[in-house]
Amino acid sequence: MIIDVHGHYTTEPSALLDFRKAQLNGESPASADLWNRISDDQVRESVVGNQIRVLTERGGDLMIFSPRASGMQHHQPDARMADEWARASNDLISRVSSLFPEHFAPAAQLPQTPEGNLDGAIAELRRTVTELGFVAANLNPDPSGTWAGKPLTDESWFPLYEAAEELDVPFMVHVSTADNPNFHTLGAHYLNADTSVFMQLLQSDLFQRFPGLRLVIPHGGGAVPYHWGRYRGLSVRNGWQDPSELLANVFFDTAVYHQPGIDLLTEVVPAANVLFASEMLGAVRGADPETGVEWDDTLVYLRSADLDEDDFDRITRANALRVYPRLAARLEGTSA
Amino acid sequence: MIIDVHGHYTTEPSALLDFRKAQLNGESPASADLWNRISDDQVRESVVGNQIRVLTERGGDLMIFSPRASGMQHHQPDARMADEWARASNDLISRVSSLFPEHFAPAAQLPQTPEGNLDGAIAELRRTVTELGFVAANLNPDPSGTWAGKPLTDESWFPLYEAAEELDVPFMVHVSTADNPNFHTLGAHYLNADTSVFMQLLQSDLFQRFPGLRLVIPHGGGAVPYHWGRYRGLSVRNGWQDPSELLANVFFDTAVYHQPGIDLLTEVVPAANVLFASEMLGAVRGADPETGVEWDDTLVYLRSADLDEDDFDRITRANALRVYPRLAARLEGTSA
Repeated sequence: MIIDVHGHYTTEPSALLDFRKAQLNGESPASADLWNRISDDQVRESVVGNQIRVLTERGGDLMIFSPRASGMQHHQPDARMADEWARASNDLISRVSSLFPEHFAPAAQLPQTPEGNLDGAIAELRRTVTELGFVAANLNPDPSGTWAGKPLTDESWFPLYEAAEELDVPFMVHVSTADNPNFHTLGAHYLNADTSVFMQLLQSDLFQRFPGLRLVIPHGGGAVPYHWGRYRGLSVRNGWQDPSELLANVFFDTAVYHQPGIDLLTEVVPAANVLFASEMLGAVRGADPETGVEWDDTLVYLRSADLDEDDFDRITRANALRVYPRLAARLEGTSA
Repeated sequence: MIIDVHGHYTTEPSALLDFRKAQLNGESPASADLWNRISDDQVRESVVGNQIRVLTERGGDLMIFSPRASGMQHHQPDARMADEWARASNDLISRVSSLFPEHFAPAAQLPQTPEGNLDGAIAELRRTVTELGFVAANLNPDPSGTWAGKPLTDESWFPLYEAAEELDVPFMVHVSTADNPNFHTLGAHYLNADTSVFMQLLQSDLFQRFPGLRLVIPHGGGAVPYHWGRYRGLSVRNGWQDPSELLANVFFDTAVYHQPGIDLLTEVVPAANVLFASEMLGAVRGADPETGVEWDDTLVYLRSADLDEDDFDRITRANALRVYPRLAARLEGTSA
């Protein structure tokens, strides 16, 4: 079994997008009403020829599936609107994974807002995990989209971490759209966020306080593995922990779209901390005209990387079951 | 001859720092008065046992030397204060390189301000290049320190590019201190800036407009070479130029502090676009306790990288003379 820990529902039915448009137009559509506007067949059609086809053609089996990252739009300040938007998005993810439990495990969008109150996020995390069987959630370190909030190591975030520890679910640290013309969302903001959060963690004792908290940093950790020596050197000089000490709680995905990047990632980061991910169908689609390999077909790069069988299995399966224990439980339930 | 294109004057005499303190205290010290407060011996002492010792011990010869990056403090809005601060800093760099022309070639700090008017920057660029023999300047893509300004591809920057083309000097794109608690200056802001600027360039036609403009992106290009496939894929999908097309004008330095990072950089980026740099004595000092190699001794990594003799010479010497033509002219003058 091969598990891809990072996919977003970028082929969502138009009714979901209409729901959002209505919200942004000042209407108050109810997420409960959305259910009947989308048929099971529409849900099936949205993924069968897309994520399921690509996943299985490439030799994958299951994807941890969450709402479109750029659509989370946490910069909208209305908490009630954010709650309903997350609920609508997550309910649809739940339907996808209920229809195809062998191919999808659900991960939640949290109703964060720039103001930073996390009551709604904690409630939605509880609802999706305990009522809907979600195995993880995406945590936006920059709900404002302008980095107006506090670092993830600030105590204002702690109630959310307490809930994650209690529920035993990891967070993927994933921003939404950048609201600054200096930062292209897919080409800069995503990678900058990954880099910035790792650096926040390196300076803090967050995991001494929350030893059960697990954070997955996507997109190969931004710039971090490429600059691993920089982080080691900064740590020695500043008396911080060594970056390797974070690896009890921090994991990097493989959404890095060329062979040299995957080679570096798997050379620098221990195999126990690397999680297979493609983020398909995501930011980067299509194939390299020079090789014919689809950019986001990261399994191809992993198969060509210098990995023994055990490490390949860790990265593509075993780590995911360890980092996402509710995924392991869910799969046992599915196959039972 | 081995040329390091990236060093800052991080061992500046305390009189320079006192000058800045006086400025920030609301006094108006004149840069012209600073000269006599610092003796030639003090200037010599500040570098002989530091940059010159380290440079030559490691087998290097010459360093392109500019004021301390984190000290540029372009977020201060007073244009006249910025002018005097840049002038004081650059005059001191000029003294260092006049005392040791075989070891230092000067590069300028520009008196940028958050408001973005570039008149002072252009004047100081002209002064340092034409009167003091500077070979380059550092260009801050985020003078505000909060990314409140416009991308480097915005036309408001064009007068500065016209001056750089006319003077035939490259810019190193280098931010100063971050003014946001989410971004550690050395561990996140520097790398994020490198990544963000490359992405700005990828979306624009800046170099069609300024074919003679040359930009050096430091710190190994931030996250860019590690994610080269991401940029290629984004370009194909969005109809932008291929990232390789930027390489007529964009160069990456080697301030990447471990072997796997240098291996990736030199594998992904053509040798013609890689410039040897250590950024010593900079953000990361001391030696890796596991290997005994000093983190920023990037010559060690380059010597161990898979480079033939020609490519090694390009990266450590020939590219610098091509990208910084006034350096070539200066060296001819020095050796004559």
